[in-house]
Amino acid sequence: MAKQFVKEIADMDVDFPQWYTDVVLKTQLVDYGPVKGTMVIRPYGYAIWENIQRELDARFKATGHQNAYFPMLIPMSLLNKEAEHVEGFAPEVAVVNVAGGETLAEPVVIRPTSETIICNMYSKWINSYRDLPLKLNQWANVVRWEKTTRPFLRTSEFLWQEGHTIHATREESMAETLDMLHLYADFARDVLAMPTFIGQKSEKEKFAGAEATFGMEAMMLDGKSLQAGTTHHFGQKFSRAYDIQFLDKDGTHKYVWQSSWGVSTRLIGAIIMAHGDQRGLVLPPKVAPVQVVVIPVAAHKEGVSEKAVEVAEQLRKAGLRVELDTRDQSPGWKFNEWEMKGVPLRIEIGPRDIEQGVATCSRRDTCEKFTLPLDDLADRASELMQQIQSNMYAKSLAFRDSHVKLARNMDELGEILDSKCFAKVVWDKDPACEALFKEKFQATVRVMLDERPFQDVCTCCGRKDSAENLVVALVARAY
Amino acid sequence: MAKQFVKEIADMDVDFPQWYTDVVLKTQLVDYGPVKGTMVIRPYGYAIWENIQRELDARFKATGHQNAYFPMLIPMSLLNKEAEHVEGFAPEVAVVNVAGGETLAEPVVIRPTSETIICNMYSKWINSYRDLPLKLNQWANVVRWEKTTRPFLRTSEFLWQEGHTIHATREESMAETLDMLHLYADFARDVLAMPTFIGQKSEKEKFAGAEATFGMEAMMLDGKSLQAGTTHHFGQKFSRAYDIQFLDKDGTHKYVWQSSWGVSTRLIGAIIMAHGDQRGLVLPPKVAPVQVVVIPVAAHKEGVSEKAVEVAEQLRKAGLRVELDTRDQSPGWKFNEWEMKGVPLRIEIGPRDIEQGVATCSRRDTCEKFTLPLDDLADRASELMQQIQSNMYAKSLAFRDSHVKLARNMDELGEILDSKCFAKVVWDKDPACEALFKEKFQATVRVMLDERPFQDVCTCCGRKDSAENLVVALVARAY
Repeated sequence: MAKQFVKEIADMDVDFPQWYTDVVLKTQLVDYGPVKGTMVIRPYGYAIWENIQRELDARFKATGHQNAYFPMLIPMSLLNKEAEHVEGFAPEVAVVNVAGGETLAEPVVIRPTSETIICNMYSKWINSYRDLPLKLNQWANVVRWEKTTRPFLRTSEFLWQEGHTIHATREESMAETLDMLHLYADFARDVLAMPTFIGQKSEKEKFAGAEATFGMEAMMLDGKSLQAGTTHHFGQKFSRAYDIQFLDKDGTHKYVWQSSWGVSTRLIGAIIMAHGDQRGLVLPPKVAPVQVVVIPVAAHKEGVSEKAVEVAEQLRKAGLRVELDTRDQSPGWKFNEWEMKGVPLRIEIGPRDIEQGVATCSRRDTCEKFTLPLDDLADRASELMQQIQSNMYAKSLAFRDSHVKLARNMDELGEILDSKCFAKVVWDKDPACEALFKEKFQATVRVMLDERPFQDVCTCCGRKDSAENLVVALVARAY
Repeated sequence: MAKQFVKEIADMDVDFPQWYTDVVLKTQLVDYGPVKGTMVIRPYGYAIWENIQRELDARFKATGHQNAYFPMLIPMSLLNKEAEHVEGFAPEVAVVNVAGGETLAEPVVIRPTSETIICNMYSKWINSYRDLPLKLNQWANVVRWEKTTRPFLRTSEFLWQEGHTIHATREESMAETLDMLHLYADFARDVLAMPTFIGQKSEKEKFAGAEATFGMEAMMLDGKSLQAGTTHHFGQKFSRAYDIQFLDKDGTHKYVWQSSWGVSTRLIGAIIMAHGDQRGLVLPPKVAPVQVVVIPVAAHKEGVSEKAVEVAEQLRKAGLRVELDTRDQSPGWKFNEWEMKGVPLRIEIGPRDIEQGVATCSRRDTCEKFTLPLDDLADRASELMQQIQSNMYAKSLAFRDSHVKLARNMDELGEILDSKCFAKVVWDKDPACEALFKEKFQATVRVMLDERPFQDVCTCCGRKDSAENLVVALVARAY
């Protein structure tokens, strides 16, 4: 029976991009919108986003951030104030020229990100050191006109959160930038069951207008890297461009120090490509819209439907997200569908099970089948959620660790990348070397790692240098 | 001390619009965005919206709705498919002509509402009666280019939820339309402490493209009505325009029946104008960002700060939203600020209070001052939240009921409206009468009420008619 569905999904070992497209469409996570590059996030996909939002939002609030909402429409002149920023984003913006039937005196852009408009407001709101730090976040949509788009990974419009904080000192804003990077990595590990690499981005890869950008990179099952979140330190670049000053305790006016940080619906793409298999999605219990599906088998037999309802109710009372599938379809059809949809635990309730006081269960992560006693089902299912979550992380971590290798020279780097692994290289930070990674292997420096160089020469150019001038960088092909 | 703040807010009896503007800006609910007619929702305002969202979202899910997200950008051609709809919305849309540095082949509009794009997707997704009903909701921003704007009440961009449901039969979609109207009214009563009138809108006031629109109207303290939510029944108008058909059980293809419904950040404006007073905001506990503020008095005295921290912690453990105000300002200054911000309960902790084992409390809704025993504070404060919530509703209901009067003829109608009341009129549904309400009194038919006519002639034209041809309509000046 399984084959009938598996056939609908491309073989991930043969054509990973097609596998991805098949999975996102057939599990009804997403559909294409009528405007090029836009996506409709369907209920099953949106429920994952809601779970991500709830978990992250609680963490943001616990660390002293407040939510707000800034207008989506930004005057063109405001975008233009920070030179590097506008250079980075202007080519991608969507521009509104006509509104309310009239041509606008000044065109406005749809936010590609909100630094400019938030800085504009901060400059009005901030007077004294008493107003600092100000740590705001917003959940919003943004538009960046991209040439090549793929659902969740790169779309013209996407949903995200963007945190924007201002501080009285460089130390505080840098601490915030790094704290949020670690918050993201902890969240990825504990909620998405996804190990990540974190570190500073190279000059070339940093955010337009930032002094320093830090990234969280996750390994996908095809050996490519996905940038899953970034945090930026702006120093005083934006506060000078937008004139955000405060009167400090010492009686002098100073420019604030600033950070921003964001993750987006891209994380859903990361979950799919970090955990999926030939049968489709495999969802970590903490973000799964349905954690347990209950399927009656031979539902027409006496007592089966009632027992299935009772079991579903018990599981819901234990705080689990439960679907009771009573549709007029065969159990086999339902098994396949829920497997494809990545539901962590399937519980079958049939006449024989009931007779024996058990339920037949199947774990999505290991494909194990086993029985559990009916009278202890809620507790055992709750325990299983934790086990599945942990196991998925352990599995991802093992996969990742076995797919990262040291590249001592460019030949090794090529071999490592071609074997669908990440490479750690020693790099002298010369942009020419970085350009060569791209030119020869279509690979990029993902992040610089906080590790001691494993050799005293640059992997690319072979130049010898002292340890202080060399860094260990993670090089990979990337989404 | 209070006067120092009260002076900053205009007298609501003298200049209600200025009072409103002062309150929204000075309590930092909102600020003006750089693009005309846009607003920044500041943390204190956004927290109210988050409380509204949480309460409504739970109700939507409990009644079988799922959240999704549809693209904000809609091709112009898609908007144009339903004739009445485009006529209603085209004059207000913002149009994107340029994106990614290129002029678009077809301009796209920013959604003013999402019927068109959602219908477009529904027509792809729906095949059989098994796919119905489909009951989706989205939380989103929309843009309508308005000439005259006011924070929360009417802004170019606003946040809202829009539910869009399709059904196999007219009965089901009509039931949904009315169920959601009642859900809104129950929510307004139980969460916003706000009585409302619900009923069908006149032909003139209905939504562009709807067969019937139903509205929820709330009375503001200046005697004007605010449309606080609407639900629409589309019949098959959109399903025919967008070709949403399903194969029914009887083997024939049929067009679906459809509803939509929405409430927006306008509700925050409703809360302000339904409950506020000369000192500023009065917030119902269920939506108040801060339910209890704890203010240490003579904080330098031994044990005061510690006790205040302990009390705040106790209250938080009881599930209350608590602010402990330890800022370097006088207690009087703080009292005024939190009063202006509408916090339901203030608790002062001073040396004398501690000695006597009590806390001095002040209720925002009644301005009563009293003491509560320290050892029972959490329970008593929780009880008070319920009492304040109930009292605010009772007060609003009494105000409303004393401000609705029967108008038997146009002279009476004029008097009633001029005395800042709502009028119930008997109306023969003649659009000419409706036009006269507007022309003579700048008033409109808000909703038609489900009540028996109290006379056998139309309040406007005096024509006699049978009870079946007459309705009782609520006529008021409105926002």
